Amino acid sequence: MTNSNITITGYETRDIRFPTSKHLDGSDAMNKDPDYSAAYVIFHTNAGIEGHGLTFTIGRGNEICVAAIKALAPKFVGKTLAELTVNMRDTWRILTGDSQLRWIGPEKGVIHLSTGAVINAIWDLWAKAEGKPLWKLVVDMSPEDLVNSIDFRYISDAITPEEALAILKKNEPTKAVREAEMREHGYPAYTTSIGWLGYSEEKVRELCRDAIAEGWTHFKQKVGGNLEQDIQRARLIREEIGADAYLMMDANQVWDVQQAIDWMQPLLEFKPYWIEEPTSPDDILGHATIRKVLSPHTKIATGEHIQNRVIFKQLFQAKAIDFCQIDSCRVGGVNEVLSILLMAKKFGVPVCPHSGGVGLCEYTQHLAILNYIVISASNDNCVLEFVDHLHEHFVDPVRMKGGRYVAPTMPGYSIEMKKESISAYEFPLGKVHK
Amino acid sequence: MTNSNITITGYETRDIRFPTSKHLDGSDAMNKDPDYSAAYVIFHTNAGIEGHGLTFTIGRGNEICVAAIKALAPKFVGKTLAELTVNMRDTWRILTGDSQLRWIGPEKGVIHLSTGAVINAIWDLWAKAEGKPLWKLVVDMSPEDLVNSIDFRYISDAITPEEALAILKKNEPTKAVREAEMREHGYPAYTTSIGWLGYSEEKVRELCRDAIAEGWTHFKQKVGGNLEQDIQRARLIREEIGADAYLMMDANQVWDVQQAIDWMQPLLEFKPYWIEEPTSPDDILGHATIRKVLSPHTKIATGEHIQNRVIFKQLFQAKAIDFCQIDSCRVGGVNEVLSILLMAKKFGVPVCPHSGGVGLCEYTQHLAILNYIVISASNDNCVLEFVDHLHEHFVDPVRMKGGRYVAPTMPGYSIEMKKESISAYEFPLGKVHK
Repeated sequence: MTNSNITITGYETRDIRFPTSKHLDGSDAMNKDPDYSAAYVIFHTNAGIEGHGLTFTIGRGNEICVAAIKALAPKFVGKTLAELTVNMRDTWRILTGDSQLRWIGPEKGVIHLSTGAVINAIWDLWAKAEGKPLWKLVVDMSPEDLVNSIDFRYISDAITPEEALAILKKNEPTKAVREAEMREHGYPAYTTSIGWLGYSEEKVRELCRDAIAEGWTHFKQKVGGNLEQDIQRARLIREEIGADAYLMMDANQVWDVQQAIDWMQPLLEFKPYWIEEPTSPDDILGHATIRKVLSPHTKIATGEHIQNRVIFKQLFQAKAIDFCQIDSCRVGGVNEVLSILLMAKKFGVPVCPHSGGVGLCEYTQHLAILNYIVISASNDNCVLEFVDHLHEHFVDPVRMKGGRYVAPTMPGYSIEMKKESISAYEFPLGKVHK
Repeated sequence: MTNSNITITGYETRDIRFPTSKHLDGSDAMNKDPDYSAAYVIFHTNAGIEGHGLTFTIGRGNEICVAAIKALAPKFVGKTLAELTVNMRDTWRILTGDSQLRWIGPEKGVIHLSTGAVINAIWDLWAKAEGKPLWKLVVDMSPEDLVNSIDFRYISDAITPEEALAILKKNEPTKAVREAEMREHGYPAYTTSIGWLGYSEEKVRELCRDAIAEGWTHFKQKVGGNLEQDIQRARLIREEIGADAYLMMDANQVWDVQQAIDWMQPLLEFKPYWIEEPTSPDDILGHATIRKVLSPHTKIATGEHIQNRVIFKQLFQAKAIDFCQIDSCRVGGVNEVLSILLMAKKFGVPVCPHSGGVGLCEYTQHLAILNYIVISASNDNCVLEFVDHLHEHFVDPVRMKGGRYVAPTMPGYSIEMKKESISAYEFPLGKVHK
């Protein structure tokens, strides 16, 4: 069947929640008891294939994202895949350009989280129809088509379509080499599983030892709850991982600007590779100030809560961050991620996507790989977060090997959940919640 | 009854929509066909009084804000008014600090629009219980209590509680004079009713003449759709209002940074007092760049889409705006508005609240008046937007006299809609929608 014969016949959306707060997986100074959740959408077609997408939340409010999916998804019903993919920028704007829905964003928060789910379901469908994993679909796009999937509105003062095209064209002759490398060796990762705030000292030691045995070289610690405990925990982890391994710290937005600077002083002795989310994700100038003071003793990372390309643009312009941690769900899907990757390349900021949660690793492996092959063309300092839970619910879960993500090969965006998981974890009536 | 005997017994929420798109009221370059709407909440009590609040939207998506109200409002059910008002900062944080709901913001978009509706309903209830209009309730608060209603998280690098207290204390000895002035003369306004993009030339001329006859001196034109038409319309309005009246222009975010600068060049001859929303509301650095180039030929105004105090803080820090147009619904209610008014005062930026829509004038008259009496203590360059529609649906609608808002006297926040309007315009089953 050709894409012009594949018609979207309908959609369904589900509120899926995993009761992860029971074991304090994912606990940090800001997010004390997350129940990893997904506002999930499935597009049905006349062709026997489906497009799946989700946005990640941490529990309450997931139903609000489902309500937003209901406002967005019907816009694609009745359209053919060919119509939707001939110009992905126009297709994206069908969602972000609704003149009434725009008011409750624009391009931020609930409506944008759900935009990501809906547009990513189209990317998933397209990749399946082409018989390729998502990363390969994008890698095979012509530079022109890739640029045509991006909305340059509000970022043209930082990057023009012509500049984006030039980046892609420059990388084109060598991309086959990098693709082969990714297929053979996979993408380097780091682990957050060791350092959740709610874990006991013994549990952290044990997890460190397991992780080292598995080949990990980068480790992340949650900070910002209690300074004495942060220092103690940092000492403990350094004891376990040694002086040469990378130790990252993550404050999950708990500090004000001056507080971030003060709190980090006694932690610098443990040589944190970066401090992540030191303050509000909306505070571009605040991040710039913190970076100015803490540099070069540590680096500044943020991104999981950055709402869209306009804020990322300014973080780059203001030299506010050393690492760009795009989130696959928070910004508006693959289209907007591509615009951010291109800006990161132009401004020379390495991209280390935020991952974990439920489904984020499945999504971000594609983004990290395609970034390396067609945009960044370099992997200096780049590592992709890995958290080892909830992968068992996916049809095509991530596979890890020696601390690296194995490049996915199954067609699609790897986000399709098993039918039995969807049914068991649906909130509030699935059997897990009863 | 004392406030400790007033208990919130329950709440209801309604999706109310006015089919304003039929007449292109409110049309501009970005918002082509708004249906002015309100996600509405009512808290019931055991005391025969109710707390009303709403957030304003422009149609589709209003149901998503209603869904968010359902996630937030139950947090206050069962509490006494005394518990909720003893420290309004803590009460505000009950809404914004929910560790799971925070993920789908934080403090932006849908969840924050609905936070505003819910917390404002508590302010309305409190004002009614005290038998005062909202502005007077705030004016009568001690400087300490007012400061205690504000969350300084993420803004302490711009203003500290001590600095806020000093501003309030300095103004205290003279506030009775300003209160008397407001009661006697009301608050100065400007009109947007003349310049909606969808109106014909004859209609604009006629509206200008009517407005001048009514005593208006400030007029606002929508721009950004078509440059030739913008020039023609500016010429027409200047012909009608003369060289001395103020003409403001409003682009509603349609431009990129350089485009804003270029588009305004031929319009500068018509001496626009300000250009409002020249680009993305998220683009602090973009506004700063535009202001640098266009200053002193025109001034920069923005605010109706500024999501929270963190973005306002940076607009002030970056010297990006000449006018702060807080919105009574978009940020998290009276509490967060107070923090923005105090920062505006410290940075010397006049506040001209965004108004219009449905209910915004009813809300913002209180904010403009209380700002003048206790915070700004000056009204240089301050005018409050006025749009003359949909006031008939409110129990205590705004009253205008000679181009000024008359200070409200009825207890509450003036946002209570008539029961028959709520029922007739409820979407989708009210009689207007059938």
